[in-house]
Amino acid sequence: MGGDFGPSCTVPASLLALDEHPALELLLVGQAPSIEACLPSNLDKARRNRLQVIPANEVISMDEAPAAALRGKPDSSMRRALQCVRDGNAHACVSAGNSGALLALSRHLLKTLPGIARPPMVRAIPTAQGACLLLDLGANLDCPAAQLCQFALLGALAAEARGAVQPKVALLNVGSEAIKGNQQVKQADALLREAKKQGKLHYIGYIEGHDLFAGKADVAVCDGFVGNLLLKSSEGLAQMLNLRLRREFARTGFSRLIGALALPLLRRLKKELNPAQHNGASFLGLRQVVVKSHGGADTEGFKNAILHAQQELACNLVQHLQSRLARLYPDRPI
Amino acid sequence: MGGDFGPSCTVPASLLALDEHPALELLLVGQAPSIEACLPSNLDKARRNRLQVIPANEVISMDEAPAAALRGKPDSSMRRALQCVRDGNAHACVSAGNSGALLALSRHLLKTLPGIARPPMVRAIPTAQGACLLLDLGANLDCPAAQLCQFALLGALAAEARGAVQPKVALLNVGSEAIKGNQQVKQADALLREAKKQGKLHYIGYIEGHDLFAGKADVAVCDGFVGNLLLKSSEGLAQMLNLRLRREFARTGFSRLIGALALPLLRRLKKELNPAQHNGASFLGLRQVVVKSHGGADTEGFKNAILHAQQELACNLVQHLQSRLARLYPDRPI
Repeated sequence: MGGDFGPSCTVPASLLALDEHPALELLLVGQAPSIEACLPSNLDKARRNRLQVIPANEVISMDEAPAAALRGKPDSSMRRALQCVRDGNAHACVSAGNSGALLALSRHLLKTLPGIARPPMVRAIPTAQGACLLLDLGANLDCPAAQLCQFALLGALAAEARGAVQPKVALLNVGSEAIKGNQQVKQADALLREAKKQGKLHYIGYIEGHDLFAGKADVAVCDGFVGNLLLKSSEGLAQMLNLRLRREFARTGFSRLIGALALPLLRRLKKELNPAQHNGASFLGLRQVVVKSHGGADTEGFKNAILHAQQELACNLVQHLQSRLARLYPDRPI
Repeated sequence: MGGDFGPSCTVPASLLALDEHPALELLLVGQAPSIEACLPSNLDKARRNRLQVIPANEVISMDEAPAAALRGKPDSSMRRALQCVRDGNAHACVSAGNSGALLALSRHLLKTLPGIARPPMVRAIPTAQGACLLLDLGANLDCPAAQLCQFALLGALAAEARGAVQPKVALLNVGSEAIKGNQQVKQADALLREAKKQGKLHYIGYIEGHDLFAGKADVAVCDGFVGNLLLKSSEGLAQMLNLRLRREFARTGFSRLIGALALPLLRRLKKELNPAQHNGASFLGLRQVVVKSHGGADTEGFKNAILHAQQELACNLVQHLQSRLARLYPDRPI
């Protein structure tokens, strides 16, 4: 039910995901009439059988406070979907709804791994070298040093689960010199240097904004206020550049011709860098997989969020985090 | 002497600036031998007469703490340059050196306007609609609400000085809903709503990261930690996209041909969006004009920072701020 477009986006996206992943089965949780209205009348039986509509009559709005979502609306689609995961009826939950409410309900219903108080939201962003995991993306706006340090470790373990060997972990800062930065960042730097000495992760120090897209790090850590603004502004910039490029190609007859010739190349680039391509952020440190889609995601974007959840299951993300955390911190919670 | 390249960048940039602005005269402050070594031996007399080398033997390094720069090095190039401005021998100071030291020395030697404790650093960034003034860019990392509010007002007045009528002022936040944001941002929002009621500025509320480059606001306000990371990451992203585009055009013989045809168009776009084109950030609220160039700026970039200082003098920025502040807050400092 969530996101800017509700079932009119999430239902067609679900059908696309079924096509791309033959083993996938989906539970569509929400107001049954709205969902069914978005299913094509000529839907083949094979696909229809891999879909199940789970009724939930309430909807958590985008501007609802997490505490209110937690206390009220026992029959919200978000709560019902997470209950499906908790009760073993689904392996993962994907939502384009209210992030704060999704995190609060996930913590409450699915619980976190030992020692993890506040799961960060993480996503891969494209860089000149491939990709970088950026966290936190907005789940935790104010982060003391110990929390940033925990995000760094969780990010490193998530990168490992995706196949990285000794992922390079960095703290985002306003300069690379030791005197730079605010109090939280400086303290987190000290904690991470210590953790590196103990062989817990491969910490490479501070990186600046431009280093992020240059691909200096495999994991970049910041608080959720910074991360959310960085992610969304970079999406806005990419969109603006695309618009300007198209305007440039539309200027004269000759430029339109070149534009037409260049179209296939630009399309490939656009596809590679398209935010929809990378849609789907994960909460790290929950006991189950929960993926948050961008609220403004289109059908293609929400489909990718569903497939992202599937990939997290395929690489055993939660099991990897759990076993590595237990080995790194055998005696006490992280 | 400052920046990544020192006089080998700043001196040629000065010569370019003299060419572009016939009435300009420049004082080059620093170690005289290093500066003179960068002046071409065949420099014509007309240009040489518009340049004056002011000797200063010490250099403030990029990783020096502002307090140390303030107490020590009485003969640093940065201090000497600001003294030239203080003593009326120059109208403005331009530096690619240590930002923190430049701000501390500027406050100490040039003083701030009444009521302004911490001048923010501001720069225009290109948007889909034209440009937006973004502040603070790193001069003040932790900002209480009242300070964000002051930045908003100074940003609005700076936009006015550049010709904007009723500039739209916004706070950068992780969401547009009232419940979103950290404590400082929520409090600043309340203060700015009040200031808007009193007719002091045209506040439009929260904007998110993607709204920045969409051009929703003429002035976007955040703390210096966020602003610095936003600015530098957007420069890094633009650079990466440029790299990817070139790589795409280099893929096959046919794509190289299209690339060659598209080159003039891409060059125009690149020039328009090139960070060097927009180089030169100002400290707002000082009693004189001080412009900070990006430390990594090339010759073209540093030239633009010099011309930016000249533009701030031409639009009477400081006088505009002073008279508007006195009218808005006649009884007490802002």
